[in-house]
Amino acid sequence: MPVNLPLPDPSQLLPIAGVHVGSARAGIRKPGRRDLLVIALDPGCSVAGVFTTNRFCAAPVTVCRQHLVSGAEMRYLLVNTGCANAGTGAPGMEDALQSCAALARHAGVDPVQVLPFSTGVIMERLPMDRLTAGMPEALANVGTGTWAEAAEAIMTTDTQPKAVSCTADVGGHAIHVTGIAKGAGMIHPNMATMLGFVATDAVIAPQLLAGVTREVADASFNRVTVDGDTSTNDSFMVIATGRAGHPPITSADTPAYRQLRDALVAVALPLAHAIIRDGEGATKFITVQVEGGRDVAECLRVGKAVAHSPLVKTAFFASDPNLGRILAAIGYAGVDDLDVTRVRLHLGEVLVSEAGGRAASYREEDGQRVMAQPEILVRVELGRGAAETTVWTCDFSYDYVRINADYRS
Amino acid sequence: MPVNLPLPDPSQLLPIAGVHVGSARAGIRKPGRRDLLVIALDPGCSVAGVFTTNRFCAAPVTVCRQHLVSGAEMRYLLVNTGCANAGTGAPGMEDALQSCAALARHAGVDPVQVLPFSTGVIMERLPMDRLTAGMPEALANVGTGTWAEAAEAIMTTDTQPKAVSCTADVGGHAIHVTGIAKGAGMIHPNMATMLGFVATDAVIAPQLLAGVTREVADASFNRVTVDGDTSTNDSFMVIATGRAGHPPITSADTPAYRQLRDALVAVALPLAHAIIRDGEGATKFITVQVEGGRDVAECLRVGKAVAHSPLVKTAFFASDPNLGRILAAIGYAGVDDLDVTRVRLHLGEVLVSEAGGRAASYREEDGQRVMAQPEILVRVELGRGAAETTVWTCDFSYDYVRINADYRS
Repeated sequence: MPVNLPLPDPSQLLPIAGVHVGSARAGIRKPGRRDLLVIALDPGCSVAGVFTTNRFCAAPVTVCRQHLVSGAEMRYLLVNTGCANAGTGAPGMEDALQSCAALARHAGVDPVQVLPFSTGVIMERLPMDRLTAGMPEALANVGTGTWAEAAEAIMTTDTQPKAVSCTADVGGHAIHVTGIAKGAGMIHPNMATMLGFVATDAVIAPQLLAGVTREVADASFNRVTVDGDTSTNDSFMVIATGRAGHPPITSADTPAYRQLRDALVAVALPLAHAIIRDGEGATKFITVQVEGGRDVAECLRVGKAVAHSPLVKTAFFASDPNLGRILAAIGYAGVDDLDVTRVRLHLGEVLVSEAGGRAASYREEDGQRVMAQPEILVRVELGRGAAETTVWTCDFSYDYVRINADYRS
Repeated sequence: MPVNLPLPDPSQLLPIAGVHVGSARAGIRKPGRRDLLVIALDPGCSVAGVFTTNRFCAAPVTVCRQHLVSGAEMRYLLVNTGCANAGTGAPGMEDALQSCAALARHAGVDPVQVLPFSTGVIMERLPMDRLTAGMPEALANVGTGTWAEAAEAIMTTDTQPKAVSCTADVGGHAIHVTGIAKGAGMIHPNMATMLGFVATDAVIAPQLLAGVTREVADASFNRVTVDGDTSTNDSFMVIATGRAGHPPITSADTPAYRQLRDALVAVALPLAHAIIRDGEGATKFITVQVEGGRDVAECLRVGKAVAHSPLVKTAFFASDPNLGRILAAIGYAGVDDLDVTRVRLHLGEVLVSEAGGRAASYREEDGQRVMAQPEILVRVELGRGAAETTVWTCDFSYDYVRINADYRS
């Protein structure tokens, strides 16, 4: 039961000119569920991506990287759920390449113009027969398929599809952005997230797209964690179709670039939040805001220490203002010269700790009241500079253990 | 229910000449339980310690550090459970100093000759009235108190007391070592553990004791983790009474030094293991052995990544050989140039993965058989050097969540 996460309203998901989605029920892992997605791009679109830093990265991640640097024009994204094709060695690479080749044959393009993505169980081979058999159905409904169906087709332990749209002004022209994402566990994106796809009709020089993609990932998916486990398959892709009709963005140092970046973040951040709200077993949505650091890096270390601590997360699950656990996490975050007498800790609007100890004004019932909410703000003032950042996480419940003890069964 | 952890046999716990223990039921947090310990040292003993690196370290840790560098001869260790006196600011420091002063008054020594230790809930003040009122009872049974009672007097969420003894040969003389420890959660010692006290009658130059203490901590408590949370109160103390009658150890580069170090490890390592066997909610005792690294540091990073992963730990709880999760953890451990095609993963005697994927010989039922055991060996060959290390951890169960959602109630 996700935390305050409404189902996407299909009527609010904006089509993006130049992008067409189609999906199929291919029976990859379980019969009868939508598990295969094809995203078809008209000629002239640009695609950029950021990928997991995990050394055991999945075969499709390696193939994506190779195809993106090949110089070929990307025409298809092929996504399956149910099997990650990670930890599969050389045969897994062959499967990923063969799946591109099979789709290319059906669609009449070159295999290098196909980007493959997989998500699901690690260390199992792709069922190539079922994957290939599902392609004609997915291709047949490209053009009539909806973003809502696309979001559904990439779910694993997600309880809800995740899709967001927005319109924005870029240099006086309206542009459109629509994105989908999946993920609920093994979530600690490091340069990217499990799977996220965002498309826009904005016009941007292809050489700028990689940079803005990284900026957007850093402001959204790279700021969330469910369990501190960086997945083997994390991939975040941005597609720019260039159909919006505004003058091309050709420099990162322009208002139009910043407007586009903000519009992409306006889609990517709610998608990243949706992953946390639907985090495995989540009952609380927790925002950890760290201020007053010397630089963003140390704010991030403190925010992640708090967000990763199983003790902090179980206290949130119990609605127990056991706030010493948050102090302990701040203390071991690796800020070696931290002066704890300058640290101030707030829970919502309640000042909990200052001068190295409990705040004189703090009353347990105030902490209790904030902890009982489904949305909780933890605010840490480090008192040593002007940098700040924010990390989002969820609590740690019985259901996290149940879901992950049962996942393969 | 700890994993294969027999209760200490009081008759097997060796007295250490020059060290006397006494305890009391002071009602620090709950009435009727043994929660106050005094360790009295005869004149002429040496004491060394290593302490938490947590910046929010507890007031007694700060006081211990000050007293140890004062040059005074240590005569008493004072330990309370039920309250950590951490995150208590300047008033907490005052409480720690006052507790030393109160014991010193009763015992007729100087306050700087007392080392204070606290463990329990963070961000609550010490109940000074009850602590002080319990001191006469604890002092009265110094000399008749047993190490088994001492081990009991420092427990928090531990389900069993933890105490180990050994005898060893040092330069042809028999020496004796006895140690106690406590800890079950917030266990990821970083330079020390929650609380561990080891005493020996060995004769060693005081200036060498700090070095051997650190070596012993690195070989024992610094190699275990329950939940990745480094406590505010971690303290590991070694007491050498010098009563064994052998020629003093005056150099670290001697067989006698190494014999003493090994004897101390022979007590400290089973204590560290006892903490994992009694880890909050533990049902499995897991040894993660990492070999073939370029240096110990990278072996340790890989071992800790595997041992910290909630996904790996819930899979162990479920006895599910979902071994791709271990590959994922190896992959994100931060060994940036790791060649995954050279990594080999074994579960017990079963080769699970090689060449970046599933081993050809691996059968799921073999993995299943190992996973069903209460004691599991995970062996990772990195294939890039000759360094190795071992980390110990437990699984992650419903009971971990239950215990930590309930801890303060």
